[in-house]
Amino acid sequence: MEKSIVLLSGGMDSAVTLYKARQKNECFALAFSYGQKAQREVSSAARVAEIAGCKFTVLEISLPWKGSALLDECKDVPGYSEISQGKIPGTYVPARNILFLSYAVSYAEAIGAESVYIGAHQLDFSNYPDCREVFFDSYREMIRKGTKSGSEGRPVDIVTPIINMTKKQIVEEGLKLGVPFEETWSCYTHEEMPCGRCESCMFRARAFKEAGIADPFFAGKS
Amino acid sequence: MEKSIVLLSGGMDSAVTLYKARQKNECFALAFSYGQKAQREVSSAARVAEIAGCKFTVLEISLPWKGSALLDECKDVPGYSEISQGKIPGTYVPARNILFLSYAVSYAEAIGAESVYIGAHQLDFSNYPDCREVFFDSYREMIRKGTKSGSEGRPVDIVTPIINMTKKQIVEEGLKLGVPFEETWSCYTHEEMPCGRCESCMFRARAFKEAGIADPFFAGKS
Repeated sequence: MEKSIVLLSGGMDSAVTLYKARQKNECFALAFSYGQKAQREVSSAARVAEIAGCKFTVLEISLPWKGSALLDECKDVPGYSEISQGKIPGTYVPARNILFLSYAVSYAEAIGAESVYIGAHQLDFSNYPDCREVFFDSYREMIRKGTKSGSEGRPVDIVTPIINMTKKQIVEEGLKLGVPFEETWSCYTHEEMPCGRCESCMFRARAFKEAGIADPFFAGKS
Repeated sequence: MEKSIVLLSGGMDSAVTLYKARQKNECFALAFSYGQKAQREVSSAARVAEIAGCKFTVLEISLPWKGSALLDECKDVPGYSEISQGKIPGTYVPARNILFLSYAVSYAEAIGAESVYIGAHQLDFSNYPDCREVFFDSYREMIRKGTKSGSEGRPVDIVTPIINMTKKQIVEEGLKLGVPFEETWSCYTHEEMPCGRCESCMFRARAFKEAGIADPFFAGKS
């Protein structure tokens, strides 16, 4: 079995990605505590990894310059209705996926893993430039040029198994794979219950609605 | 004046790079404490930034998987004579420059800086894949594709002002610019004085010898 690093955020997309990766790989889940308001993501990620039976590492990283409504206490997380369509929203974190992938590639080279899985998708998404296939293609090329594994002709691969799925398809795939959606956390804020008004809550609600099932998160919680 | 982030390691190459960058930019120096044996690098970087009059930030980052003789207490830093020419040495840190650049790009986007300076050079170097121009070209392309600044047509630039200089030329350039070489630290180990046998010590000694001057570090110290 090959080894893979899986970036796990605690949300539903990365949970589905982990369950896809573990079908044929020994998975090492990696999460980040990076000053996000939604610290609950991290405990959700830990729980998902535990249920999946994967090794779990969480790194504390510091982005003192913030630059995002997800990090900055002085900036409110925008509601979905406040976001201009076609624009990159204020929840963009500068170079976040670039940074997370870079840690994962370092981890992969150190333990001899063949690949890094990331649960980005470009269909129902927030205009984040670092969730698009064109970005991942250029990231792979950069890994070929700038790492030992690349120089030796066996670059760590970046795998994006849900890149072209809709949110509805991601839910359906997760149900098939037995993903514990009830443990996942998508909201950008940190409350007892999801805020229901941020973009991430909205995408999640629409996904379960379109898939025709109730979000398992709320079962027995309301 | 434009803003630039300058990656500062505490060694002579990044010090010269900082002094080149500050000729025309407002510089924000960024250093990392990443578990390296040569922790002295960080205090040297702080001192160089202070003398240069630049804001200095040091980030503590964790690479628990190590994967390098610079990080792993169980692996000795190889002497220069132990390294096979043409091979990537055991001092390679998986994805290190990729990670450092990614932090710097995040910082740049958050504060509206136009560029990131890095003191890599590809002539007298250690076969590190992440010090070659071909890597930086692919990194720039990745930034164009995967960041907000790139999407908006003004990608953070990666500037490598000494990429094609020899070590001798780097010394000469530094002397012209008034770089405080006496404060810089190149050795991969952490002793009172440089070990004199690691690859980095060897490159430094040869550079000053070829430039025909004594290494200012040793003035009054022997």
